Amino acid sequence: MSRRRLLGTAGAVGAGGLVVGGLGGASVAEAVREDPDPLSGVGSATVPFHGDHQAGIADPAQAHGHLLAFDLAPGADRKAAAALLRRWSATAAELAEGRTPKGDDTGIALDAGPSSLTVTFGFGRSFFDRTGLTDRRPAALEPLPAFTQDALDPKRGDGDLWVQIGADDALVAFHALRLLRKQAGDAVRPRWEMSGFNRTPGATPRPMTQRNLMGQVDGTNNPKPTDPDFEEKIFVPRDRKGPDAWMAGGSYAVVRRIRMLLDTWDNLPLERQERVIGRRKSDGAPLSGGGETTPVDLEKIGPDGALAIAGDAHVRVAAPSANRGATMLRRAFSYHDGFRDDGAPDAGLLFVAWQADPMKGFVPVQRKLDRGDGLSRFLRHEASGLFAVPGGCAEGEYVGQRLLEG
Amino acid sequence: MSRRRLLGTAGAVGAGGLVVGGLGGASVAEAVREDPDPLSGVGSATVPFHGDHQAGIADPAQAHGHLLAFDLAPGADRKAAAALLRRWSATAAELAEGRTPKGDDTGIALDAGPSSLTVTFGFGRSFFDRTGLTDRRPAALEPLPAFTQDALDPKRGDGDLWVQIGADDALVAFHALRLLRKQAGDAVRPRWEMSGFNRTPGATPRPMTQRNLMGQVDGTNNPKPTDPDFEEKIFVPRDRKGPDAWMAGGSYAVVRRIRMLLDTWDNLPLERQERVIGRRKSDGAPLSGGGETTPVDLEKIGPDGALAIAGDAHVRVAAPSANRGATMLRRAFSYHDGFRDDGAPDAGLLFVAWQADPMKGFVPVQRKLDRGDGLSRFLRHEASGLFAVPGGCAEGEYVGQRLLEG
Repeated sequence: MSRRRLLGTAGAVGAGGLVVGGLGGASVAEAVREDPDPLSGVGSATVPFHGDHQAGIADPAQAHGHLLAFDLAPGADRKAAAALLRRWSATAAELAEGRTPKGDDTGIALDAGPSSLTVTFGFGRSFFDRTGLTDRRPAALEPLPAFTQDALDPKRGDGDLWVQIGADDALVAFHALRLLRKQAGDAVRPRWEMSGFNRTPGATPRPMTQRNLMGQVDGTNNPKPTDPDFEEKIFVPRDRKGPDAWMAGGSYAVVRRIRMLLDTWDNLPLERQERVIGRRKSDGAPLSGGGETTPVDLEKIGPDGALAIAGDAHVRVAAPSANRGATMLRRAFSYHDGFRDDGAPDAGLLFVAWQADPMKGFVPVQRKLDRGDGLSRFLRHEASGLFAVPGGCAEGEYVGQRLLEG
Repeated sequence: MSRRRLLGTAGAVGAGGLVVGGLGGASVAEAVREDPDPLSGVGSATVPFHGDHQAGIADPAQAHGHLLAFDLAPGADRKAAAALLRRWSATAAELAEGRTPKGDDTGIALDAGPSSLTVTFGFGRSFFDRTGLTDRRPAALEPLPAFTQDALDPKRGDGDLWVQIGADDALVAFHALRLLRKQAGDAVRPRWEMSGFNRTPGATPRPMTQRNLMGQVDGTNNPKPTDPDFEEKIFVPRDRKGPDAWMAGGSYAVVRRIRMLLDTWDNLPLERQERVIGRRKSDGAPLSGGGETTPVDLEKIGPDGALAIAGDAHVRVAAPSANRGATMLRRAFSYHDGFRDDGAPDAGLLFVAWQADPMKGFVPVQRKLDRGDGLSRFLRHEASGLFAVPGGCAEGEYVGQRLLEG
């Protein structure tokens, strides 16, 4: 029974039906409520959990995100992992519909609607050794190459299991995090957690490309679900054969915690910032002309006789045309964790990039950026993870079932 | 010129007016935009900066909050502090109206409306010695008494200057934080920073009392601006005389970082949680009967012959009637900073309590809670601050002017 429908019933029973002096063991979801109001707006939006692909990939990034990695506890085996993914999937499906899972008395999200909640599950490289599934580990989970500008903290990277939570309400997102942690019990140990944010829906006059904490419009050239090659570029083919056939309909997530050197960046004059990026800050239009969505013209010569888009401009070095069509779907959250010992902001981007094959998405682009991107001197990659995110599941199934029971 | 009005003008000029190939030094706010859409919803809401009281006290807590403390740098004197508060006040006023301050090219909040942004400034006890103003320090800034259950980290408490930022959009709030930090230059050094959250407007069917991370409806008995004694209890009288006459119309903020032992709490059965609080979790109704806003009946005997509200229930120990009418306005943010080394969540409440006199608000209530509150074994007070928050200022004035130039 949905939380909202429950409230409707309570309203019909009448406000006089309130229980006095204790509930005699009724769960919080069963308790009589005085609130028959229907949901509308931010709270009412839902993203279905079940489907060919997992939620939280092709749908818009929410206002709040949590990225969590867990390691299996010593002794936890493939069977324990299967039981966990089964529990987690059932819970994620209920929460996505705005229902209160049985036995959940936390109450944290009780008044709110699902608020576009998504929960996405993935497996790290180490998961396969620990569960005796090494022979089914995808080749795509080979460790990412080292980049010269990396300064990675291994404690905040990788992990056996990865969970991405997103919602447009902070308490709804936190509630999901708490429930999943609780349901994991002793089977896993938390490895790292990162939390981030995006615009609140309605803060801008219309839905717009997100801005990052450098103030830059970020994500204009993202592939769109309506692109003819979107499925092919972002998702593993449905007819995938071989040891990683279980990844059919899945995707690979590259997660990078990218700190921005904001004090340095903000001291740069606007014009130099725009030259570094290759786009205008105000509206994200390429410096080669047009509006935000006008294709970047890398050959365009400006009135001063120089290239309109500089040789080391971020948009030039990252352009698909400069990377043999390499494509990834970036779906990031900004983060801000106060300041560091030196007083500089500990803030930047929780970069999450999705692709059918990291060797045809993140890796070639990052190789180019690592060498020639004018933006990279304002960034520090501090943590990195690569996760195999299986396809979605149907009702009654769970994410990863084809791997864990196959 | 307001950001929104600017966009309107750009629309009238027409989309063909876009500048190609660099802006020639125009600031980001002057850049031509293609976006004539009017703001509506979350983004359009404004809270005026100017007024008898500062913003961010009597208005509802926003979805995002930052609490920052600064210490004056060595050598920074009263004059430097006055210059800083003048700059900060001017910036806060512009941001509250959705304008881009001159010279601000960060762009972080560029697409969004003010989103109910408020910025509130306060002075800590140490400020007065460092600026030669000890004789004008209010007696109300005496250090808070030690409570037996405190485990305070002095590095995360107190400070010369305190800033509270709130907004319903995370980038709008972050933008304000960045600008104020930048404008502070070398005059101050950051001491501590805490960030928190509340519900996103629209996530619930109607505006409701906030829930905290224990799932409890929290703030039902808060004084309301319509209460006849609200002004008297929360704000220093306008006709204040004596050395702290500059605090007329001001208020005192008690800030406590209160970690919640959520693993322990969540393992408690619902009925025991409700007994600890004295309210039903589902809707916040007191266990003595009625709905959320029904007055708590501390004498009520339940059907089992025992007190409906237990002797150590939080609502009993905190009740104004048990504390000679002691009243404070709680305006809190939840926080979640990942997990601790032992795997427990680092999460809880950034408790901010407002009152005309801490000795008639927070102190007597906390003394009682410290001794007799059944809830306190699930809480850890980890940081504490007390700040004198001057009255609001009129246009052309700045917050604290009566102290710093008086």
